[in-house]
Amino acid sequence: MPSISKRGVEVPLSPFRKLVPIADKVKAEGKHVYHLNIGQPDIETPAAAMAKVKETDLKILAYSAAAGNASYRAKLVDYYAKFGTEITADQVVVTTGASEAIQFLFLACMDHGDEMVVPEPFYANYNGFAHIADVNVVPVTCDLEDGFALPDAKAFEAVITPKTKAIFITNPNNPTGCFYPEKALKELAQVVKKYDLYLFVDEVYREFCYDGQDFFSVLRLEEIENNVVVIDSVSKRYSACGARVGAMVTRNEELIDAVVKYAKLRLSPPGLGQILAEGALDMDDTYMNEVKQEYDRRRNVVFDRLQKMDGVISYLPGGAFYCFAEFPVENADHFCQWLLEKFEYKGSTVMLSPGEGFYATPGLGVNQVRIAYVLNTTDLHAAMDCLEEALKVYPGRIKVGQWAEGTAVV
Amino acid sequence: MPSISKRGVEVPLSPFRKLVPIADKVKAEGKHVYHLNIGQPDIETPAAAMAKVKETDLKILAYSAAAGNASYRAKLVDYYAKFGTEITADQVVVTTGASEAIQFLFLACMDHGDEMVVPEPFYANYNGFAHIADVNVVPVTCDLEDGFALPDAKAFEAVITPKTKAIFITNPNNPTGCFYPEKALKELAQVVKKYDLYLFVDEVYREFCYDGQDFFSVLRLEEIENNVVVIDSVSKRYSACGARVGAMVTRNEELIDAVVKYAKLRLSPPGLGQILAEGALDMDDTYMNEVKQEYDRRRNVVFDRLQKMDGVISYLPGGAFYCFAEFPVENADHFCQWLLEKFEYKGSTVMLSPGEGFYATPGLGVNQVRIAYVLNTTDLHAAMDCLEEALKVYPGRIKVGQWAEGTAVV
Repeated sequence: MPSISKRGVEVPLSPFRKLVPIADKVKAEGKHVYHLNIGQPDIETPAAAMAKVKETDLKILAYSAAAGNASYRAKLVDYYAKFGTEITADQVVVTTGASEAIQFLFLACMDHGDEMVVPEPFYANYNGFAHIADVNVVPVTCDLEDGFALPDAKAFEAVITPKTKAIFITNPNNPTGCFYPEKALKELAQVVKKYDLYLFVDEVYREFCYDGQDFFSVLRLEEIENNVVVIDSVSKRYSACGARVGAMVTRNEELIDAVVKYAKLRLSPPGLGQILAEGALDMDDTYMNEVKQEYDRRRNVVFDRLQKMDGVISYLPGGAFYCFAEFPVENADHFCQWLLEKFEYKGSTVMLSPGEGFYATPGLGVNQVRIAYVLNTTDLHAAMDCLEEALKVYPGRIKVGQWAEGTAVV
Repeated sequence: MPSISKRGVEVPLSPFRKLVPIADKVKAEGKHVYHLNIGQPDIETPAAAMAKVKETDLKILAYSAAAGNASYRAKLVDYYAKFGTEITADQVVVTTGASEAIQFLFLACMDHGDEMVVPEPFYANYNGFAHIADVNVVPVTCDLEDGFALPDAKAFEAVITPKTKAIFITNPNNPTGCFYPEKALKELAQVVKKYDLYLFVDEVYREFCYDGQDFFSVLRLEEIENNVVVIDSVSKRYSACGARVGAMVTRNEELIDAVVKYAKLRLSPPGLGQILAEGALDMDDTYMNEVKQEYDRRRNVVFDRLQKMDGVISYLPGGAFYCFAEFPVENADHFCQWLLEKFEYKGSTVMLSPGEGFYATPGLGVNQVRIAYVLNTTDLHAAMDCLEEALKVYPGRIKVGQWAEGTAVV
């Protein structure tokens, strides 16, 4: 029997993946599990967008252009303009989800052994894509104490080497929910310019910025137009994760050419998904406003409830639909497994993502978790009831006195 | 401005890609171009399958399982059973087109610098996927004289080294249309067994076997159950190239596990495409029988017409919808470009794929082309009229006497 490749054995997985079989088992046994572990919202995909798919008179579902349908790319240009970003359709490549955009960029911008600086904690699948491209993730650590704000220029410069080719950030952030304001991005731009690096920014959560904060796209940064690349997706924006439609946007013509070569290899992004995505762009703002308000309500539920839990340290996230929190436990991985296997409250339990897997630095995040507030407020309260009760009775809870009072850092 | 990676500069493209801008230009100028260069059929996607998409009552287009929807995988099992293949749903991973299945396999089965033996000419994008995975394609040359039949065991053994991890074939073949019978596959199986290699077989054209030949899936080969992997796609079968739904099938559990890890990184194959694909599997055989008959008619048109062209050497392809041919020209690349730029017949011309790019061995296929018979017989005849006329007047035509009479090898 032929063997699996070394890399196939080593490919890193998302932090909660090993908990999935356990969750499946206890659900089969009748326990209800509130899933706060994955970014799969319970929000409906806009019916108006689905209707465009249902109304199509397409006779042949042919390959679209490798870079995506011209009509969809044109509408994306108008969409980005709403955020003060002037680009052209030639500067957009439609991809099979943001995942594919990331893979194309890693390949087109970096060679084997090159380095990319990423603030940690970060979306854990970046590790897997870096593994495929054979490039190295170099972390810059963010702090829970300031809500995981973007590190300053000095912190980035401290880890830049001659092998560094890119800085990769997510704004608003997954997994922390941190919103990066214009000022912080402009400071980062100076680093990008100084070392002539690529700046990859995953902006898939741009619609979800709270507290009246205006989203600032890095495509608006001046003097580094050829360095900036935005990664996008319709998955979260329209709760259409299964559409598998993403995009990359850059003014760097050489990079577009290189990415399109990779796009041509796989021939075409999904055709039906592009019809849906185009339909979503035809809508007015009603859907998005409602969704944003809903996430804002959920955000406050999670924040309020965590704040009241003894020993839990968290903060009010400024964007996306995630929150990171520190728990009074020795090992959040064990706690998350225990939650599924050993705990139940009113017939239910909650599934969270252990924090450690979102860090590249060994030993960090061991007592932290990511919470995705992707359930309606009723379910979210019920999930928080479970969590509150669980933290009281968990055998691995840190003893009183070992920890300061739970303090929420806003 | 940051530079493109070395690999991003070097990534190899499909043989006809550089002709696309030329074709676009002359079309804009009013010339009609018959596209026989790409495997995009003019056949309609089954309306019954499209109807399943239109009838869906899905409220949330969520991520499907990373390995694909359970309902679709179950139906694929029944579909493969029609070809005498007994497999289970756990042995199927749904992918984003065959392209993604190939990429997952290269990563999961081979490490950097490993080798894979591929009969040439072969589907040129395999080069690109090998480039991404940083593995080497080692060719075994097939001959036009015997219709590009599968080379014998000795030919494969001659190029196997300690670095060889896999043999990769396409049956029926793209770009040659060659049908590999059971006997040839069983001979190859002995090589696979002797060296304990993976055997990847792209079977996406299995429905299109002519002259009463029965398709034999390598999943039916005994003693090498853990070596065999089938690559599949709905693109050509249902003329649904834009659905982006493929699959890989293997009885090797370790390989399934490794591939599913890569599948989890990109979260999910396209959801709407899976609904369409499932709808296609609900149909009776009427659609497929009609499509197969139509391709058979086209096959005969191409064969008959080529046979009558002075100096052209070709053969009757046994499957798929491609034919390779040798032209009385010094350089088919130049000829294909000249066809677009300098030639027209009744306001039209024809676009073909130059043959050289389908070979890994330098210098082979220089005077060959691939013809994809993806147009209806009326258009196909018109395209052949163009080709026939063009070969008469092409300035780079080899002089009489330099070539034997055109002989068709059946």
